[in-house]
Amino acid sequence: MRIDIISVIPELLESPFNHSITKRGIEKGLCEIHIHDLREYGIGKYRQVDDYQFGGGAGMVLMCEPLANLIDQLQSTIAYDEIIFMTPDGKPFKQSAANQLSLKKNLLVICGHYKGIDERIRQKYVTLEISIGDYVLTGGELAAAVVIDSVIRLLPGVLGDETSALSDSFQDSLLSPPVYTRPQEWRGLSVPEILTSGNFPKIEEWRFDQALSRTKKRRPDLLD
Amino acid sequence: MRIDIISVIPELLESPFNHSITKRGIEKGLCEIHIHDLREYGIGKYRQVDDYQFGGGAGMVLMCEPLANLIDQLQSTIAYDEIIFMTPDGKPFKQSAANQLSLKKNLLVICGHYKGIDERIRQKYVTLEISIGDYVLTGGELAAAVVIDSVIRLLPGVLGDETSALSDSFQDSLLSPPVYTRPQEWRGLSVPEILTSGNFPKIEEWRFDQALSRTKKRRPDLLD
Repeated sequence: MRIDIISVIPELLESPFNHSITKRGIEKGLCEIHIHDLREYGIGKYRQVDDYQFGGGAGMVLMCEPLANLIDQLQSTIAYDEIIFMTPDGKPFKQSAANQLSLKKNLLVICGHYKGIDERIRQKYVTLEISIGDYVLTGGELAAAVVIDSVIRLLPGVLGDETSALSDSFQDSLLSPPVYTRPQEWRGLSVPEILTSGNFPKIEEWRFDQALSRTKKRRPDLLD
Repeated sequence: MRIDIISVIPELLESPFNHSITKRGIEKGLCEIHIHDLREYGIGKYRQVDDYQFGGGAGMVLMCEPLANLIDQLQSTIAYDEIIFMTPDGKPFKQSAANQLSLKKNLLVICGHYKGIDERIRQKYVTLEISIGDYVLTGGELAAAVVIDSVIRLLPGVLGDETSALSDSFQDSLLSPPVYTRPQEWRGLSVPEILTSGNFPKIEEWRFDQALSRTKKRRPDLLD
């Protein structure tokens, strides 16, 4: 899988992809991530990438031309399965979308910043608009990092143990059951007895019951 | 505002807080962020912080003792308004929660990693469990960065123009209207005439209509 990212603050994305699971995926050759600095495609001596919005109002808007030039150049050699724009008015991101994206070959991710990007870029180029949640961030960079992290960990071979991702929250529409590790007694609190019983079918049953009751209590909407 | 973060991969959080708006908030003295490496509180020669889960199954679990020792030490000098645990089974994060958290003085954020943290830490210490969305990430670090970014940009004085945050998506339960910048004509696509009319009351009306129709079309759930 190849992922290209367009950003005006590429430095923001340095550390999320240089550590942990994403790094492992890259080192194993399972994915490549290319971060493109939109400013290199900025206009004029000052490499302008944004301008005031028509109609007035606070916040700058990323201009069409620098984005279009960069996207055109990338598309001249790469056929993207999706050109994604990270935006609060996009489709709410869910685990099922992460699963689907993990099957793609080439993804281009555009990070907005400031007030957004010129609507015409969305009309001309963008095939998928994603929101990671109903809140506003400084820019699309962290949102892109979140989506990419969720996708890369699903690529076969990235996680150490394949079964780990399958038992995550949401893969079966249920929240995860509680987990415990040593010591068995800690500050007066014990691990539930069943978990130390060695009776694995019963343990699985307990975990399912816990997952179900936790979901009913915290997120009944997931069961609809 | 002071935010303490506990992580086993603190390097992952370097770049998100060293750039853009968060950096500006820190430089202006409006917030401080302290990242704590859980491994420094690890047990024994190998500074162990995680162990296998009771009952079997893939994925490691962060142990009680290192977390408790670090939290106890922080709490000996700081009174936290909330001790937050980032977890997919937490309360779905919304803009209203960002607004509320932006009024707090001291926050402690625990990032899970691997399979999660021992349930007893959640029982003993955690006052608020937050999920940034219905998807699974490698760890809580990116989720913490998302929450903190959304909160810090709301602190008065952080954004250049106060009105910018108020006109964001979600602050009025509506998605944002489309935005345009120069040039007025681009590859055959024009900016809507109203935006260049100079008639500001009409422009505001148009923006409201656009925001409403976009919300109806894309996210009718927000209007309930």
